[in-house]
Amino acid sequence: MTEYSELITKHTETLNSALQAIKTREFYARWAEAPSGKIYGEDANANGEARFKEQLNNPFSRLLQTGAVETVVSEESPYGFPLGITYPVTSADVLVANAHKAQTQWASLSVEERSAVLIECLEKAGAHFFELAYATMHTTGQGFVMSFQASGPHSYDRALEAIATGYLAQSSFVGEQTWVKPMGKFNVTLQKKFRTVPRGVNCTIGCSTFPVWNSLPGMFASLITGNATIAKVHPGAIYPLAVVVASFQQTLSELGLDPNLIQLGIPNATHPLTEEIIRNPLVGSVDYTGSSSYGDKVEAICRERGIPSFTEKAGVNCVIVESTNNLSAILDNLAFSVSLYSGQMCTAPQNFFVPASGISVINEEGTTNVSFDEFCKLFADKVQALVSNEKMSATFGAIQNANTLNRVQTALQSGASVILNSTPIPQVGFDQARTASPVLLLADESNSDLYSKEWFGPISFIIKAESFDSAVEAVSQSVKEHGALTTSCYTVSAEKQNLMEDAMVSAGVNVAFNFTGPIWINQSSAYSDFHGTGANPAGNAAFADLSFVTQRYHVIGVRICG
Amino acid sequence: MTEYSELITKHTETLNSALQAIKTREFYARWAEAPSGKIYGEDANANGEARFKEQLNNPFSRLLQTGAVETVVSEESPYGFPLGITYPVTSADVLVANAHKAQTQWASLSVEERSAVLIECLEKAGAHFFELAYATMHTTGQGFVMSFQASGPHSYDRALEAIATGYLAQSSFVGEQTWVKPMGKFNVTLQKKFRTVPRGVNCTIGCSTFPVWNSLPGMFASLITGNATIAKVHPGAIYPLAVVVASFQQTLSELGLDPNLIQLGIPNATHPLTEEIIRNPLVGSVDYTGSSSYGDKVEAICRERGIPSFTEKAGVNCVIVESTNNLSAILDNLAFSVSLYSGQMCTAPQNFFVPASGISVINEEGTTNVSFDEFCKLFADKVQALVSNEKMSATFGAIQNANTLNRVQTALQSGASVILNSTPIPQVGFDQARTASPVLLLADESNSDLYSKEWFGPISFIIKAESFDSAVEAVSQSVKEHGALTTSCYTVSAEKQNLMEDAMVSAGVNVAFNFTGPIWINQSSAYSDFHGTGANPAGNAAFADLSFVTQRYHVIGVRICG
Repeated sequence: MTEYSELITKHTETLNSALQAIKTREFYARWAEAPSGKIYGEDANANGEARFKEQLNNPFSRLLQTGAVETVVSEESPYGFPLGITYPVTSADVLVANAHKAQTQWASLSVEERSAVLIECLEKAGAHFFELAYATMHTTGQGFVMSFQASGPHSYDRALEAIATGYLAQSSFVGEQTWVKPMGKFNVTLQKKFRTVPRGVNCTIGCSTFPVWNSLPGMFASLITGNATIAKVHPGAIYPLAVVVASFQQTLSELGLDPNLIQLGIPNATHPLTEEIIRNPLVGSVDYTGSSSYGDKVEAICRERGIPSFTEKAGVNCVIVESTNNLSAILDNLAFSVSLYSGQMCTAPQNFFVPASGISVINEEGTTNVSFDEFCKLFADKVQALVSNEKMSATFGAIQNANTLNRVQTALQSGASVILNSTPIPQVGFDQARTASPVLLLADESNSDLYSKEWFGPISFIIKAESFDSAVEAVSQSVKEHGALTTSCYTVSAEKQNLMEDAMVSAGVNVAFNFTGPIWINQSSAYSDFHGTGANPAGNAAFADLSFVTQRYHVIGVRICG
Repeated sequence: MTEYSELITKHTETLNSALQAIKTREFYARWAEAPSGKIYGEDANANGEARFKEQLNNPFSRLLQTGAVETVVSEESPYGFPLGITYPVTSADVLVANAHKAQTQWASLSVEERSAVLIECLEKAGAHFFELAYATMHTTGQGFVMSFQASGPHSYDRALEAIATGYLAQSSFVGEQTWVKPMGKFNVTLQKKFRTVPRGVNCTIGCSTFPVWNSLPGMFASLITGNATIAKVHPGAIYPLAVVVASFQQTLSELGLDPNLIQLGIPNATHPLTEEIIRNPLVGSVDYTGSSSYGDKVEAICRERGIPSFTEKAGVNCVIVESTNNLSAILDNLAFSVSLYSGQMCTAPQNFFVPASGISVINEEGTTNVSFDEFCKLFADKVQALVSNEKMSATFGAIQNANTLNRVQTALQSGASVILNSTPIPQVGFDQARTASPVLLLADESNSDLYSKEWFGPISFIIKAESFDSAVEAVSQSVKEHGALTTSCYTVSAEKQNLMEDAMVSAGVNVAFNFTGPIWINQSSAYSDFHGTGANPAGNAAFADLSFVTQRYHVIGVRICG
């Protein structure tokens, strides 16, 4: 099809940059992460906010998908008011039938054409970053800057990463070839074609804390491999993905493609949409982010149906602090890690293992021992300093839902000694915001019944470990049994670092060493860091390794003689 | 490790040739398929035969794997005599523990080192091609030349293909990188490592008809991705893989590696070895070739355990004959296809759909109609000509087991009209050989209860189809319901060819058009043809697409600050 050749040319440089970055794993970002007027236009923020305010208490009418039968209103801002936005609800059968129909046309495009169309979708949707930021803030509770980054640039870069990875896989061999086998005195010649066919309609099940960031990778990995996708949103966080999907549908339509290729699956209170979608025989892959209990169910349904699932479930992220050259710098880093979005990140650290004998601080004057109790106090002071700093209140943001707030109370009443209690974090302009600062609790290594489960939210444990080695063993065991997305270790000893690295690699979890300054283990970088490993109970997939794309299509060979 | 640098250099050209071939899908073969003295040495055949004869009725003592507790003798030549070879039997627990231990060392090697070691294993084992041919002949029943090609060159090329595909996947990104993120006035710098870790010990479950060819791809896909492998052999066809694995173990040992990296799992009559192996928690992937019923069980166990399986099960391969320029040439091709190894190939055609109105033969004098009945007669005559030609007896070979022979009788008594009856095919020098020439049976399109299941062996149906279109629909439906590894179509119409191609791609099966001369749909070519698609019930995997390797390892990220 020549109709996309201009589009291919337009986006070749972007695709090549992404392909280069996923190979070298160097820093790359197609979209700037700063919500800056200089980058995005001086009016961009005001326009985005205006668009947001206009949308409140009104029907969301931008979707081009067809077949809606009713409407639903279900979102509340964690900052304390109902959004009042009405969405069209389409049945599972109609969504899948629409998707399957759109998929036929889409799968007939070449991977070059698909990648150009998908990059165009992303580029066009980039115009909505500011509205998207307000939509994200008032569904997830994230602060504005984080909302902008997480749903905007960081999500879009993960989507482009998935496009590049899918392109890499599908272009790893030619589409056609003349095959000539020498047979001595003559040759046998065959014309061969290799056609990739999609596995089947994708359903990506989103979550309420990172509705866009956790959804786009699976959606784009499915799309680049020829599948249609249905983004099944969380009823509490519809708006962000609605903005993005509506823009994608608009772009598809302008390009003469069926906008039902990318649909929003919106649940209502009475309709168990997810299971009806993923049990449909035309559905060929499922992506999921959310609780382990429901994730296990999704995985079981997919296993039963013989289709791949790509899941991110709960995990318990662990940190070991053993020694450092700069205690203040690591405490700054750790305090920020537990405070960012009030710990409501799948990557936020929960359990801090510290040797009972304290930690060694090495500087010009020699080695100082900081006792376990002193470490707890210093850590609590650093968190309290952030809590008390009004300028940092947006870092904490609001608590997405009441369950998380209740969990803070449950933790405080768990019997563990409280190192730092939780307080509200006032959010300027939003008196009714649901907030909670981080709780720090004390635990013994032996008390793993308490700390070994995920306490999603602003809840952390400082655990008195017998030794560094026992901490490594405990973390290793925790990863294998309860899963983790991140682990982290602070040590000045190369030997201890190697021990930790090998243990974490063997346990199947990513590991970070000695993070200080403006880089936190909560964050992974598209094109460079794989998010998740698929090798521990926190999930079976990684954004975006080859396995994340290669299971979404098949290759069919056509051989023609003469 | 520098100790493998010479080996890497030695095999770089071979690896690069294979990498090039899997990209371009052009013809490539590292090992010549002709069992020729000019290529392999004038004494090679005599030496191989002598080695074979010395091995008969003696213990197989070449394996270096440890921990055997008893011995077993179980093989009978389909040519009519017991092999009398005694093998050591190792328990599932010991096999897996041995493998896991060997895997730790192996996984620490780089992918370059692993590929060099594995290519060295193949090269060294190439010295055994002739003994391997006799071993294959007298376990599978294949004729000598086919035995040589199938277990030797063709298997080794599929193994090298798996190495190259695994190398491609794992080298698609760097192992280490310095990551620098510009933050305006300063940079954040991280050292990053990306370590691939094996999914877990592989178990490859072999079959009795292609014990080497169907096993090496899964074994080498597992090995190149850092896993140890256990080749669980069929009790009736141990010898071929024993020759190969013993040689691999010898090479590993000479290179200072643990020979238990590649072990033979030998079942005895009382020990259900397979399930004990694949239920072991240290086992991380399973490859399987064999019946659908047991394959379904293997898949279910793997699903339950959350590990990938790569299966090739039963299928029903279909051919449509509609029109041709050269009827004699296509009948020659089809007659050979059903006769080769007496139809005991997973790729052999079973169901021939021919329009009730006959087929069109187009040549210089115009178009002639050949009636359905005439086509059946001509086809039967071509097969009979092969059967009657003593020089062709080795093409048919012997029948691997009595069940297949019994199936011929069951087919003859099924009620279907017999177009061509089965007769023995005398095998020179082997008066007691178990043989059977192909049966051709007549069926109506409506009689699908009879022909829609797999009749493994020398049993084919010629099916009277209402029209070309109805045949395409019937084949399409058959592929979706019963699976297939190959489909084939003869037509001079570009329009009909396109219809068939799109229908087969949509059904998820490879398709061949107008094959004549020395190329048969039974055969696929390593590096160029994917064997299987994973997209229909005949199996969930393909030799060797990216998905065949990417599910066998995980990537773990290590990030170091400062």
